[in-house]
Amino acid sequence: MIKTVAIQGVKGSFHHIVSQQFFDNDVKAMECLTFDGVVEALINGDCDAAIMALENSIAGSIIPNYALIDNRNLHIVGEHYLDIQHNFMALKNQSIADIKEVYSHPMALLQCKEFFKQHPHIKLIEDKDTAEVAQRISTHKLKGVGAIASVMAADIFELDILAHSIQTIKHNETRFAIVKRTNSEIVEAETNKASLKFEANHKRGSLAAILNVMSDCKLNLTKIQSLPIIETPWKYAFFVDVTFEDFSDFKKAKSLTEIMADNFKVLGEYKNAKL
Amino acid sequence: MIKTVAIQGVKGSFHHIVSQQFFDNDVKAMECLTFDGVVEALINGDCDAAIMALENSIAGSIIPNYALIDNRNLHIVGEHYLDIQHNFMALKNQSIADIKEVYSHPMALLQCKEFFKQHPHIKLIEDKDTAEVAQRISTHKLKGVGAIASVMAADIFELDILAHSIQTIKHNETRFAIVKRTNSEIVEAETNKASLKFEANHKRGSLAAILNVMSDCKLNLTKIQSLPIIETPWKYAFFVDVTFEDFSDFKKAKSLTEIMADNFKVLGEYKNAKL
Repeated sequence: MIKTVAIQGVKGSFHHIVSQQFFDNDVKAMECLTFDGVVEALINGDCDAAIMALENSIAGSIIPNYALIDNRNLHIVGEHYLDIQHNFMALKNQSIADIKEVYSHPMALLQCKEFFKQHPHIKLIEDKDTAEVAQRISTHKLKGVGAIASVMAADIFELDILAHSIQTIKHNETRFAIVKRTNSEIVEAETNKASLKFEANHKRGSLAAILNVMSDCKLNLTKIQSLPIIETPWKYAFFVDVTFEDFSDFKKAKSLTEIMADNFKVLGEYKNAKL
Repeated sequence: MIKTVAIQGVKGSFHHIVSQQFFDNDVKAMECLTFDGVVEALINGDCDAAIMALENSIAGSIIPNYALIDNRNLHIVGEHYLDIQHNFMALKNQSIADIKEVYSHPMALLQCKEFFKQHPHIKLIEDKDTAEVAQRISTHKLKGVGAIASVMAADIFELDILAHSIQTIKHNETRFAIVKRTNSEIVEAETNKASLKFEANHKRGSLAAILNVMSDCKLNLTKIQSLPIIETPWKYAFFVDVTFEDFSDFKKAKSLTEIMADNFKVLGEYKNAKL
């Protein structure tokens, strides 16, 4: 039974939205400053699960989070997709003309650059988070200051949204993993996706041979990402996500890949959130 | 003839070091605030080439830079590897005990977190760049303030290095691309690496079939990265780097992949920097 879920950021953050959408709204969000903090909370047993962004369609994979899951031997027990929408918000009863500066995460500022070009009187200032700025504006009643955050953050901190969806690229789908200390008991009939990690060398054909086996076992590839292994030149780690219809097909592919690749590891077996 | 090279950051930055190591020391570095600025300078003809980080062993691919090269139809004409070493520096004649705060890029602060845990009297403050802080300390003679930057930055801005290589992970190899508006005339005998982009769907076997062809043509895979194409569910773009001994093998693989994959594109053909 999931009661407390660790999130990166404060309430109203995108990780918080995911925790509410994936679990029941009744789960308690445990706010952590960093992803390291999220993982510590999970390992120490301070929470039952954690939410971690894995990749987004603009920036690609968030490799440090893959590394945390891998190095700390956590288990991906589910996934959730969220279309990140940035909204410009401030204390109530102000217009865009009243706002002198906006504080936000560098990535959010970058993604909303075109919008602020139309409002050159607003100074952009880098901050460490998105929703946390909304909270600060609310707590300290900061007039003339704007935040870029989610609709949920505006609701929670009682701010007015001055402009909706101000990001340049209108769809930025982000994929989040739901992570636990140990894998849940797997219901094979409901499990149709897996995240794998293995190593192979760069010699021609070694990755192709492994992908052939997966394809022969009727697995579809939905993600592949190589990462050089520093200490071992010419050897690469691969993070691969596969979907399948029949869990027995996956089991067969798993036993074969285990033999063909080095350091084969299942990071998680779960239900595909995209159907 | 390369005279001016656009770099992201100021002199003493890692991009500057790459421009000096890859070209003759006589090339002029053109300082740009952002990668967008680097690309604009190149397209406008304000410089002859540009340096852009592509991936590093901690964070993986820098997808926005791949997107810039792809979308603006630039050409990768070379690559260069640099082991990023972070050094703690300040105005001369100060010790670590004298330093009250250190300003740097969030990623640099994160990578040096363990070092600063041993010096809890130093406050960590996020800034937009690494070398630019070194420059600021030097220009304004800021006492009690530290920067995290390269040895070259310490030299240029005449700062003392208080501690060398303070990053937790001792090797963070970063791969940089040397980019031009058009491809140089290719000397086939000296060209043994290429960066490719193509699209394929997630159906089982479609990527494996393409990798099989590459392997049959004696190509080695040194990098692969999938990226979902938002507007087209279940279709993926792949960025792939390959090495080969004989350019004619690559040409054969190129013509076959062009037929098998959608929107096949060569981002660059160049000399492998790792031998």
